[in-house]
Amino acid sequence: MTAPLLVHFTAGDTGEWAVREARPVRGPALPTAPRLAVTEGAAPPPGRWNLRGVVSSLRYTTAAERAELAARQEGLGRPAARSAALIPIRKTSAWWALAQDERRAIMEERSRHNAVGMEYLPAVARRLHHARDLGEAWDFLTWFEYAPEDEGAFEELLRRLRASEEWEWVEAETELRLDRS
Amino acid sequence: MTAPLLVHFTAGDTGEWAVREARPVRGPALPTAPRLAVTEGAAPPPGRWNLRGVVSSLRYTTAAERAELAARQEGLGRPAARSAALIPIRKTSAWWALAQDERRAIMEERSRHNAVGMEYLPAVARRLHHARDLGEAWDFLTWFEYAPEDEGAFEELLRRLRASEEWEWVEAETELRLDRS
Repeated sequence: MTAPLLVHFTAGDTGEWAVREARPVRGPALPTAPRLAVTEGAAPPPGRWNLRGVVSSLRYTTAAERAELAARQEGLGRPAARSAALIPIRKTSAWWALAQDERRAIMEERSRHNAVGMEYLPAVARRLHHARDLGEAWDFLTWFEYAPEDEGAFEELLRRLRASEEWEWVEAETELRLDRS
Repeated sequence: MTAPLLVHFTAGDTGEWAVREARPVRGPALPTAPRLAVTEGAAPPPGRWNLRGVVSSLRYTTAAERAELAARQEGLGRPAARSAALIPIRKTSAWWALAQDERRAIMEERSRHNAVGMEYLPAVARRLHHARDLGEAWDFLTWFEYAPEDEGAFEELLRRLRASEEWEWVEAETELRLDRS
């Protein structure tokens, strides 16, 4: 773990990802644009909108879970992973008022967030970006990459997470679906 | 819990706090200045240096600990609390590479960070500001307020925390001591 990595997601006319669809989930869809640029630790290109998040220390994951993740997961940028999704989420203020053990109990002991995600590894790679403390309108920006033939598995993962108790604490969510091109 | 509160600590010629002393702890002292301004959720005044941190959600505190804190602690700005300290801390990259349960075990089960701090409530009021994800040079900026007659108790609190296992993971620390005037 080096310093936290600041990542910009910029919608506009440049970037390696073509925007296939902006989907509403809970609240409106993001304003669409032809392309999305993902910029790590540098100034982003100009664009129509820009979301920022930080890849930072683990907030809920235990050492045992981390070891299992490390054994199963593959990194971003795999040549076969030509599909991606950017899913910004905001949780309720009641969620953020909970203590650490209360949030962990809802998220993992009852909703099995990590355990469910683990079932889709290594097919669906994921990176979490923390945005709340940066003053952004979203709490988290989650980035997923997978091969086009794993789209069905990815949809199933989203359905299962959204049916969990944890999602009762989500007040806004939206999706951008992308293709590497 | 409302939105995270961005706080600026600005050393210069303005602000309600007079700088009594800049003390080195682990690494150099901060460059000194006559006064310190604390600005919440707004643009800071110009100054010689400025540190930023966010008052955010609880990262380690359990519901039981939070209830005990709420029963004992008093807020900032008490008229009798005319002394203050700003203590920026940076932990090692090895600390940040630990999983959540490993950090919690060192911090609370073995070092009793919250439990020790609780013994000095309500005399020594404390507010934690998270700086690491903002890209600052420090991970935390802790702010303490107490009455001048509680200075001895405050020094004892610092000695006890610095003697704990958790402090083996602190790679840099510095202090600013202040008087409200």
